[in-house]
Amino acid sequence: MSEIQQYLTEHRDQHLKELSDYLAIPSVSALSEHRDDVAQAAEWTAESLKNIGMEHVQIMDTGGHPVVYGDWLKAEGKPTVLIYGHYDVQPVDPLELWETPPFEANIRDNKIYARGASDDKGQTFMHIKALEAIMNTKGELPLNIKFCIEGEEEIGSPNLDAFVEKHKDLLSADALVISDTPMYEKGKPAICIGLRGLCGLQIDVKGPKGDLHSGLYGGAVQNPIHALVSLLDSMRDAEGRILVKGFYDKVADMSPEEKASYDALEHNEAQMKDALGVPSLYGEKGYTTLERTWVRPTLEINGIYGGFQGEGIKTVLPSEAHAKITCRLVPHQDPQDIADLIQAHIKEHTPPGVTVETSLFDQGKPYLTPPDHPAIQAAAKAYEKAYGARPSFTRMGGSIPVVETFSQLLQLPVVLMGFGLPEENFHAPNEHFHLENFDKGLVALSEYWFDLEGAL
Amino acid sequence: MSEIQQYLTEHRDQHLKELSDYLAIPSVSALSEHRDDVAQAAEWTAESLKNIGMEHVQIMDTGGHPVVYGDWLKAEGKPTVLIYGHYDVQPVDPLELWETPPFEANIRDNKIYARGASDDKGQTFMHIKALEAIMNTKGELPLNIKFCIEGEEEIGSPNLDAFVEKHKDLLSADALVISDTPMYEKGKPAICIGLRGLCGLQIDVKGPKGDLHSGLYGGAVQNPIHALVSLLDSMRDAEGRILVKGFYDKVADMSPEEKASYDALEHNEAQMKDALGVPSLYGEKGYTTLERTWVRPTLEINGIYGGFQGEGIKTVLPSEAHAKITCRLVPHQDPQDIADLIQAHIKEHTPPGVTVETSLFDQGKPYLTPPDHPAIQAAAKAYEKAYGARPSFTRMGGSIPVVETFSQLLQLPVVLMGFGLPEENFHAPNEHFHLENFDKGLVALSEYWFDLEGAL
Repeated sequence: MSEIQQYLTEHRDQHLKELSDYLAIPSVSALSEHRDDVAQAAEWTAESLKNIGMEHVQIMDTGGHPVVYGDWLKAEGKPTVLIYGHYDVQPVDPLELWETPPFEANIRDNKIYARGASDDKGQTFMHIKALEAIMNTKGELPLNIKFCIEGEEEIGSPNLDAFVEKHKDLLSADALVISDTPMYEKGKPAICIGLRGLCGLQIDVKGPKGDLHSGLYGGAVQNPIHALVSLLDSMRDAEGRILVKGFYDKVADMSPEEKASYDALEHNEAQMKDALGVPSLYGEKGYTTLERTWVRPTLEINGIYGGFQGEGIKTVLPSEAHAKITCRLVPHQDPQDIADLIQAHIKEHTPPGVTVETSLFDQGKPYLTPPDHPAIQAAAKAYEKAYGARPSFTRMGGSIPVVETFSQLLQLPVVLMGFGLPEENFHAPNEHFHLENFDKGLVALSEYWFDLEGAL
Repeated sequence: MSEIQQYLTEHRDQHLKELSDYLAIPSVSALSEHRDDVAQAAEWTAESLKNIGMEHVQIMDTGGHPVVYGDWLKAEGKPTVLIYGHYDVQPVDPLELWETPPFEANIRDNKIYARGASDDKGQTFMHIKALEAIMNTKGELPLNIKFCIEGEEEIGSPNLDAFVEKHKDLLSADALVISDTPMYEKGKPAICIGLRGLCGLQIDVKGPKGDLHSGLYGGAVQNPIHALVSLLDSMRDAEGRILVKGFYDKVADMSPEEKASYDALEHNEAQMKDALGVPSLYGEKGYTTLERTWVRPTLEINGIYGGFQGEGIKTVLPSEAHAKITCRLVPHQDPQDIADLIQAHIKEHTPPGVTVETSLFDQGKPYLTPPDHPAIQAAAKAYEKAYGARPSFTRMGGSIPVVETFSQLLQLPVVLMGFGLPEENFHAPNEHFHLENFDKGLVALSEYWFDLEGAL
């Protein structure tokens, strides 16, 4: 066991105690009544950076909740790594479903339960402690480190783009490391090399100026719900393929190697079907479930509403109907392009007798990095040392817009090395973090900086 | 001017005062806080029947709000007519849109404004006063009369079928007369010879057992909203024709005469379009607007809901989606047959990856009576005397299930001679009744009994 691993083992109890203190701060960024708690979590983060020897530690204004910055830049001539994380957490509702209070960390079955345990305070904390272990055993770091830890990730990072743009120089680095994505499954570490982008819009269909009696007018006036249903149904065929003209035009194919690597994961479809409680899985013909969620774009209706929703019957022909749709995008789809295509589709397919208006939601670009980048290969090596298993290179169906923001604005490779497990209830009651990955993750992260220094 | 008309003119102020008292009782059958008011309206109705010389007046239990019965059966050897009406009214929300209080009758521009003014206290009251005029001038009626005035019409007459079945003998008659349908337009009286029937169902689509993240699962799991949209869209083509197999099989065609009579009404489509505020009218190809609402069946989505309905975006792949649909039926469609066909259609068209359940709403059969029946021809004659214009024989797109109930259970012809105007806001704020039709309607109704006596 290396000196660093020895240090981590000896300080495990102390570290878990500190983590519990961090998790005790209810830094819910979405709720204004937690504004002081969010500020306190920023303070706590800044203090812990100072405590391990980080310099130029500052709590920086963003217009919203602040960014905590700190650096250690004494490895002259060596590469610089930017570490991104976030100290804010999701709301805890419904509170009654928590087995132990969300802001009192509780360890059971070698898992630590609390809001933020995995997403993302726990993993941000691991980065700080891995560096502490190196500093306290070696007296210095093998490369230069910068921290950018924000407090608005759970509300969509509304101020981060502007912040990064404004502080480009301060944040400049040779690579960005983020630990905020899940492993493939327990014992199977993963480096996420791709994220889907996002665009979406609201569709508002208007018919008659007021609700009408469906007996007196039914048959003579277009029903806005029928019109909406027809419009939405025109966007997807029965086999799950999106029919919006041009939707797939820019979609990048997988390489045969990438396809083979996903097939090798032997995704358990039966287990997924049972866990979700669906009669069968379903999706675009010609693709596996992993491909459908990782490398293929989607168009999903997230909400629909119009007319009478109460109990029983009301024979209304409603004045309006509404839907919300979002697309998950893959390289090289552009969110604005896709939004334009959908709006053109809507224009072309609007049924007679109604008018349709659309409004756009926030957008995010898809992200994909080649797995052969030295920073990624070094991360794979570090995982292998900690887990005794080579990590998979996976993608994720969700979107983390900041990844693309950093990648574009700072022009650097992004390494997504996360330690959470998919079933750890991020955003849900009983969020937790498996301590096996706390222990092995600390080893992987502290090994990584040495591997990365040589690789970059 | 006849003796009876003289009487009506002389007593006009007195009658309007009495009607105002009747309208002042807030007999809202849908709201339990108005239970005592509904009972009071029944009492008022019973009293007014006694006052004009009706006999055997009783307030009869139905299990819900009572029926007021009364008769005058002294015209030995003459036909018997049953008059149906209702003393209950719709709720008044939104109250703030009323220009004068809904339960304080206000006369302006020769219209009386109050909830129930046209639907149906006003028209029920006219029947009573027409008979009063005959009794007080002639001392007797030309035929036998029975009244059945209910208090649950506005909540769908849930107890009337059983009541009529139980009291078949008491209610037996040679014809039923109802004044609860509108004229074609001002100055154009109409006798309604057909009503559409009704059947409907709720569709509940279930997918995953809980809401899912549309990024992590989107593309791999059937989205219940997509499934619902596909199911609903499969029921109607772009030109408004219903695609449910067998839907039109039993639909009776119009005779060329009937078609010609509707064409002669010269329905003003531009005016309707403007009044409803739609970019264009819309409906089944090959039919006029009147035909689409009167003689063709419909399938309308009355409500749809699923997923996120709040402001902005929530990238959820929802667990459920729901819709409510109702069909308006024409002779000789049977509501249960049509419900069966729709359920079969749903079964056949349910997309993979979800389960669909349906539940049926209350049903009503379509109604159509030949306009050449002597009771209808006599009504036409009475209208002509009062209005100086021959009434049109029209149908109505809505459903009055009691018409079919009476027609079936008592095996008698139904005469729908209403005096309201289509724009008089039944069920809406500022309901009113034009006093021109109060005056002419009283004449028509008092003439009718003499014409009918000779005709039956």
